[in-house]
Amino acid sequence: MVQDVRPATPHGYPAKALVGDTVPVSANVFRDGHDVIAAQVELRRGDLVVCRARLEHLGNDEWRGPVRATEPGPHQLVVMAWTDRYATWAHKAAVKLAARQDVSVEIAEGLVLLREWQALVGHEVPPVVAHALAMLADEAADEPSRVNPALAAGVAHALSGPLLATDLTTATVELWVDRRRAGVGAWYELFPRSSGGLRGAAAQVPRLAGLGFDVLYLPPVHPIGRTFRKGRNNSLDAGPEDPGSPWAIGSEEGGHLALHPDLGDFDDFDHLVRTAADHDMEVALDYALNCSPDHPWVREHPEWFYHRPDGSIAYAENPPKKYQDIYPLNFWPPDERDRQALWEACREIFDFWADRGVRIFRVDNPHTKPFAFWEWVIGRLHRERPDLVFLAEAFTRPKVMARLAEVGFSQSYTYFTWRTAQYGPEGLRTYVEELAGGPLADYMRPNFWPSTPDILSGPLRNGPPAAFALRYVLAATLSPLYGVYSGYELYENEPASPDNEEYMWSEKYQLCERDFDRPGSLSPLFAAVNSLRRRHPAFSRLQGVHFHGSDNPNVMAYSKTSEDGRDVVLMVVTLDPHSAQQANLRLDTAVLGAPGDRPFVVRDELSGEQYTWGANPYVRLDPFRRVAHALVPVPAAEA
Amino acid sequence: MVQDVRPATPHGYPAKALVGDTVPVSANVFRDGHDVIAAQVELRRGDLVVCRARLEHLGNDEWRGPVRATEPGPHQLVVMAWTDRYATWAHKAAVKLAARQDVSVEIAEGLVLLREWQALVGHEVPPVVAHALAMLADEAADEPSRVNPALAAGVAHALSGPLLATDLTTATVELWVDRRRAGVGAWYELFPRSSGGLRGAAAQVPRLAGLGFDVLYLPPVHPIGRTFRKGRNNSLDAGPEDPGSPWAIGSEEGGHLALHPDLGDFDDFDHLVRTAADHDMEVALDYALNCSPDHPWVREHPEWFYHRPDGSIAYAENPPKKYQDIYPLNFWPPDERDRQALWEACREIFDFWADRGVRIFRVDNPHTKPFAFWEWVIGRLHRERPDLVFLAEAFTRPKVMARLAEVGFSQSYTYFTWRTAQYGPEGLRTYVEELAGGPLADYMRPNFWPSTPDILSGPLRNGPPAAFALRYVLAATLSPLYGVYSGYELYENEPASPDNEEYMWSEKYQLCERDFDRPGSLSPLFAAVNSLRRRHPAFSRLQGVHFHGSDNPNVMAYSKTSEDGRDVVLMVVTLDPHSAQQANLRLDTAVLGAPGDRPFVVRDELSGEQYTWGANPYVRLDPFRRVAHALVPVPAAEA
Repeated sequence: MVQDVRPATPHGYPAKALVGDTVPVSANVFRDGHDVIAAQVELRRGDLVVCRARLEHLGNDEWRGPVRATEPGPHQLVVMAWTDRYATWAHKAAVKLAARQDVSVEIAEGLVLLREWQALVGHEVPPVVAHALAMLADEAADEPSRVNPALAAGVAHALSGPLLATDLTTATVELWVDRRRAGVGAWYELFPRSSGGLRGAAAQVPRLAGLGFDVLYLPPVHPIGRTFRKGRNNSLDAGPEDPGSPWAIGSEEGGHLALHPDLGDFDDFDHLVRTAADHDMEVALDYALNCSPDHPWVREHPEWFYHRPDGSIAYAENPPKKYQDIYPLNFWPPDERDRQALWEACREIFDFWADRGVRIFRVDNPHTKPFAFWEWVIGRLHRERPDLVFLAEAFTRPKVMARLAEVGFSQSYTYFTWRTAQYGPEGLRTYVEELAGGPLADYMRPNFWPSTPDILSGPLRNGPPAAFALRYVLAATLSPLYGVYSGYELYENEPASPDNEEYMWSEKYQLCERDFDRPGSLSPLFAAVNSLRRRHPAFSRLQGVHFHGSDNPNVMAYSKTSEDGRDVVLMVVTLDPHSAQQANLRLDTAVLGAPGDRPFVVRDELSGEQYTWGANPYVRLDPFRRVAHALVPVPAAEA
Repeated sequence: MVQDVRPATPHGYPAKALVGDTVPVSANVFRDGHDVIAAQVELRRGDLVVCRARLEHLGNDEWRGPVRATEPGPHQLVVMAWTDRYATWAHKAAVKLAARQDVSVEIAEGLVLLREWQALVGHEVPPVVAHALAMLADEAADEPSRVNPALAAGVAHALSGPLLATDLTTATVELWVDRRRAGVGAWYELFPRSSGGLRGAAAQVPRLAGLGFDVLYLPPVHPIGRTFRKGRNNSLDAGPEDPGSPWAIGSEEGGHLALHPDLGDFDDFDHLVRTAADHDMEVALDYALNCSPDHPWVREHPEWFYHRPDGSIAYAENPPKKYQDIYPLNFWPPDERDRQALWEACREIFDFWADRGVRIFRVDNPHTKPFAFWEWVIGRLHRERPDLVFLAEAFTRPKVMARLAEVGFSQSYTYFTWRTAQYGPEGLRTYVEELAGGPLADYMRPNFWPSTPDILSGPLRNGPPAAFALRYVLAATLSPLYGVYSGYELYENEPASPDNEEYMWSEKYQLCERDFDRPGSLSPLFAAVNSLRRRHPAFSRLQGVHFHGSDNPNVMAYSKTSEDGRDVVLMVVTLDPHSAQQANLRLDTAVLGAPGDRPFVVRDELSGEQYTWGANPYVRLDPFRRVAHALVPVPAAEA
């Protein structure tokens, strides 16, 4: 009986893994009776067995073994269990020998096993095995303790595999393997129009690559509608110079397959993609299934939209709010042929930009489109392009976010943006432990953003530079995937109103000029933390996070540990951007690989300073000086 | 999207319910976007809809509604969800009205909905609905707050059902419904041979019925083998007068379809079954798939047993222990026809005794037989006899016990026998909360036994009468199903050895004479507690248990609450049979329906005494006087 194989999703969709990661596969394995069982796991890619490992019994019928994928694409985890007839026999024989009972029946049974094995492999029993059994038989009579343990191990190795099994049972689950960038990366979002278009964005790439970013994410680059265009601060009366929201996609100049003429042409786009690649970065595009009233689809395919009783096309509403500049698509038009045509057109957008070198898409508001559509379109695309990555911008209810991850999204935005306290059900500890330790960890990869163009929240609202620094450090060191939105390094902190989370003078409705070289910006911290993330594999996985004790809720201590346990970094971060905070920590020194009973030396990887610490160190963080320590143990020889 | 319907089992087998119980059905229900959804559940029995209920949204996309079964047998729970087009419309219209926005489009849309509804039901729109809509239209212009709420509710009721749904989705899970005795009952186990056979056992029935027992469980009543028969205290040399273990089934006088001649004949058996029925009790038989070497099957069907290399039939072993008096069956003989014949023969045993009026079977050691066999045989029997009840005597690992419950067993023995402390991972609180509150509660029904003929453990070993009293009270008030083994009331407490849990002079190997009328026995407590259980529906379900605080780990306080919340009993039990214990309790008065801020009167249902208590009462339990209170709140008028 093999059941409850993990990694898995709750409803049978593929779990997720990254190329190169060691994936611990676990299962509950048991059978009736007292016979000894054995189990193994195979990672398969179609007919190819990528790797195979024996599972180890951890107790309570829970078994575990590691696999590692080498290529992206669809895989199967096949867990097999069987009655280990040799081990069952050996256990029985050993106990009887120890109790000095007669083992003549066991010797006869052992020979039967050997003969079966011989018939199956088609050649003689290896001499070592035959010899071991002969010795067992000889020695059993008077001196059981002298049976040679090395020979016994030889017998076990030859006979314990599935070859002799008469009751092999298997359980198979699907595993989707992504390239590493799907699970590890630092994102930077910028509106190309504020940088002088696509060429201007390309000119930013060397700076961003130098700061250690991996992904340059662009809001929609398509023509923007004129009808009901929004003006500055989301006003209804746009002036002739107002550029409109990039998410109001489509004008007479084209729709989702066109570039906004102000941003440049396809040569400029290709140049940007190439420049990014030259700097080991990637361009991520926004995929927003909104249409402005001027989108070509409105004219060409009115059947893809909702209609009001008077025949007019319905604009988006979340009453009493109205979005007259956006027509939502009807993913279930009455005629099935219309549905197919619409879904294929939506799929074509992905393929179009993928053909131009884009392999990452940030998908706008996926929770307002059918799950069935995402399951279909991502599955369809992944069949031919397993390297595509999809980030779900779904700031919505937990079960909806989980479902989007289940049906195929590679990554997900999260509630990190609103998790600002350390403790409590709404605190960072609870949230990170849920993401990293619960069932979600098998299939939902969080991408932590301190802010987005839509969301200025928590301590960032009218917040001091330290608020931006500490939220950045948390995002970048708690999650292997994180992102910041251009202007963050300049501490843009002015809310549009006390009632919502928009920015004043939001870049969604206007161009923003920024001096990224301004002294005092957060850029040096970006560089330092991205470098820290690259030097320490501990930051490349969500799992391996451990929260240590602190007697001050404003000082949080957590360590990250790499898969092999050899890389450990202890983060100590203040949650108060306004005043100095001090705390006595209660470190779980075993997790850190540090001695629990005597002092040890740690080095702050951000400042270079060294400290001699014990299990209960005193720390003081003055946000005007620094918001965090990133501490690694210094080997005694170097300290 | 409907998912995660409960009750359910983890691997798709039917969950369990009892006739007459209100079953809270829950599911996660959500869809893309912001439209309002509605959901209902149907309990179906084939084509028959037994009952139907709307689900209520509890928050976080979790929905719940009640069903109630009226007959045993296989059922389906069908949860349906749909976009409530009316509620979506009404919400939009209401928000717009409140914001004094134009609702002419909404009125037109409302009329479309009404016309659709009219076409579907085939008659006119009810006047109340049409009137409400007209009022809405009239009033929208200048005074939205005057829309009549009663009329609005009328519209909602008529239009919110699944009739207008265009996107009905369903999720179906199987539910097995048992008669109530499968989930609620007090068992009493006795060896008929110690009572003078089947007629003697029948003579015990009036006494046991008078004490409030529901089920009389008999160890195997079949002929006992002579070959390698065990003597007193499990010795290998039985004397000619030693009766042997009833579990070594089969002799030349017959096997599982025969009665041991010393116990009586089929007339006597029928008399016993009839006597039990006359006293509202039932006879439960032991179903033990063991064969003594003298069992007719050994001669007639050697192919159903294991064979050693020399051709002899293998006896049972758990090395270094040998059970020469028992031959285990091979449930997977090499020839598939032999397997079928064996399984059918095993099935026939159940049918044979069921034809003689036995509807409850206590199944010996099911974990040493294949899960596939139990799934098949219970499923096969339940098709024609849905009133059969199967108790799994599986004292084994948690996942194996859960699997047996999943594949069909009605009840299960438990670890209660070894859970003696209040707190800690191995304590009673943790265990009962796991059984009553976790996923197991959907399909595994615990049957709590303080001891069995095989197990004398914990405080019962050489224990005083109070140990027997307190363990009895715990079993009978924590679980709706519990049992005691004859002799318990006489405090039989002598272990066979310090190394195992057997009784000295175990009844398994000899007859035991007992004077059940002896003064000072536990029988009056049996009668009092069984009466308490019958008077209070709170004890008829596993759920509804709540542990209250106690500053003394030796004093445990827990309340049981009935399904409708109207019956609450607070149990306060000492866990120390040797000395008086005192404690200050921290009662969760809200759970008890008692005032939190002023004194209230409680009556002890076991002693009749009344106390005036607050939220933090002091209690003292002297085990020489009493081991427990069973307290119910006294209405102020009666106090």
